[in-house]
Amino acid sequence: MTPKPLILVTNDDGITAPGLRLLIRLMSELGDVVVVAPDKPQSAMGHAITINSTLYINQHNGHQDGAMAEYSTSGTPSDCVKLALNELLDRRPDLCVSGINHGSNSAINVIYSGTMSAAIEAGIEGIPAIGFSLCNFKWEADFSAFAPFITKITKEALEKKIPPGVVLNVNAPNISEIKGIKVCRQAKSNWKEKFDKRTNPMGKEYYWLSGEFDLQDKGEDTDEWALSQGYISIVPTQFDLTAHHSIPTINNWELNE
Amino acid sequence: MTPKPLILVTNDDGITAPGLRLLIRLMSELGDVVVVAPDKPQSAMGHAITINSTLYINQHNGHQDGAMAEYSTSGTPSDCVKLALNELLDRRPDLCVSGINHGSNSAINVIYSGTMSAAIEAGIEGIPAIGFSLCNFKWEADFSAFAPFITKITKEALEKKIPPGVVLNVNAPNISEIKGIKVCRQAKSNWKEKFDKRTNPMGKEYYWLSGEFDLQDKGEDTDEWALSQGYISIVPTQFDLTAHHSIPTINNWELNE
Repeated sequence: MTPKPLILVTNDDGITAPGLRLLIRLMSELGDVVVVAPDKPQSAMGHAITINSTLYINQHNGHQDGAMAEYSTSGTPSDCVKLALNELLDRRPDLCVSGINHGSNSAINVIYSGTMSAAIEAGIEGIPAIGFSLCNFKWEADFSAFAPFITKITKEALEKKIPPGVVLNVNAPNISEIKGIKVCRQAKSNWKEKFDKRTNPMGKEYYWLSGEFDLQDKGEDTDEWALSQGYISIVPTQFDLTAHHSIPTINNWELNE
Repeated sequence: MTPKPLILVTNDDGITAPGLRLLIRLMSELGDVVVVAPDKPQSAMGHAITINSTLYINQHNGHQDGAMAEYSTSGTPSDCVKLALNELLDRRPDLCVSGINHGSNSAINVIYSGTMSAAIEAGIEGIPAIGFSLCNFKWEADFSAFAPFITKITKEALEKKIPPGVVLNVNAPNISEIKGIKVCRQAKSNWKEKFDKRTNPMGKEYYWLSGEFDLQDKGEDTDEWALSQGYISIVPTQFDLTAHHSIPTINNWELNE
């Protein structure tokens, strides 16, 4: 009998997030699940790691949603993966899944995403990894239409193997009838920031970051296009950030004259 | 008379870091400088942004090192760039430089780097950007051999223009006689973590993250190779994380059957 795959489940919204709880239940159908997730929300943490302060780990009763074990940590999503691999798991996981994030990680959002940073951290360690996100940031978001696709994508990933150096960034539209799945590239986009300036009770000014998403890409092969048409987007994502195509250009500069 | 270029200077070690102070002096020779940097060290913050708490800005006397103005903020390096562009500068900068980081941001370190996240944030906003790092994490690191190369690279970048969608990741070896500059790709590598487990006075266990850098790349076109040979490395770095080469592979999976 082939042993069940060991699946590490993590996220950035914290161990109590409904999206994580559903992901644990879905993964428990496919393998042995261990959960290592932040003890508090860590959204927009990017690929932060904790080097100047201490890390704590708490063990929880993991059996409610089918996991073999659950841990929360005081660290970032990347810290959770590092702690899982080095301290908490007794063998290498066959897969790491992160999410289901409450909110989109499509387009440029991947850069700021704690969900994806956890998946990328696993990818750097050579472990196949997928980040799942729903385009609805509310705590009470409805993940039910997304759920069967998560199972399907995960089964394919376990069977067909994710290419080395690649991590899947999966986003779902916030609709009840999803049309299917598209493999996409990351849409060119940014955020048009608008800081909300206020004055605190002591008279000092402070700011809240807010902004509007600005899509600058009309391509029909992007994640934003797929989502807008009712499809789930899968962007194969890499952590070799080299802009290989521009090396010849920079090599033409007069750098050593 | 052509107006001087406006140069935004930031970092992740905080506004008092010697590497930043030197970068301000070097840039003041090339243009009008405005500094917006964290009010405390923000190393290893990756591309974190502050969305669940408030941001404060303090104005400093910027004239000591030649800047037109200096501000510190309570935010991450990415927050600093967003605040600079949206609240503090009265026109778009011609260049954003980040650093000089006390410590290497070569190879996989780019993913965790606050220095590079600030440069990448500027790049996302369409502003030419460069991160400078010295392979010596000490506060008293000697940046003097690196300094003339920083001026040279910056002048070339202002003249020749960095390609759109690309940010330069510049690292220097910690030696007194640098041989020259190489344009490189990011070396494949990771960190072999080793958590240092201790017990606090209340009897609870906690962890410190530590580890060893593990180079898995023998290529002679990588940043690690260039640095090991006494050269400065420039890796053109991108924020389109799509693994374009693997789209056909994933498209062959049975996702819509």
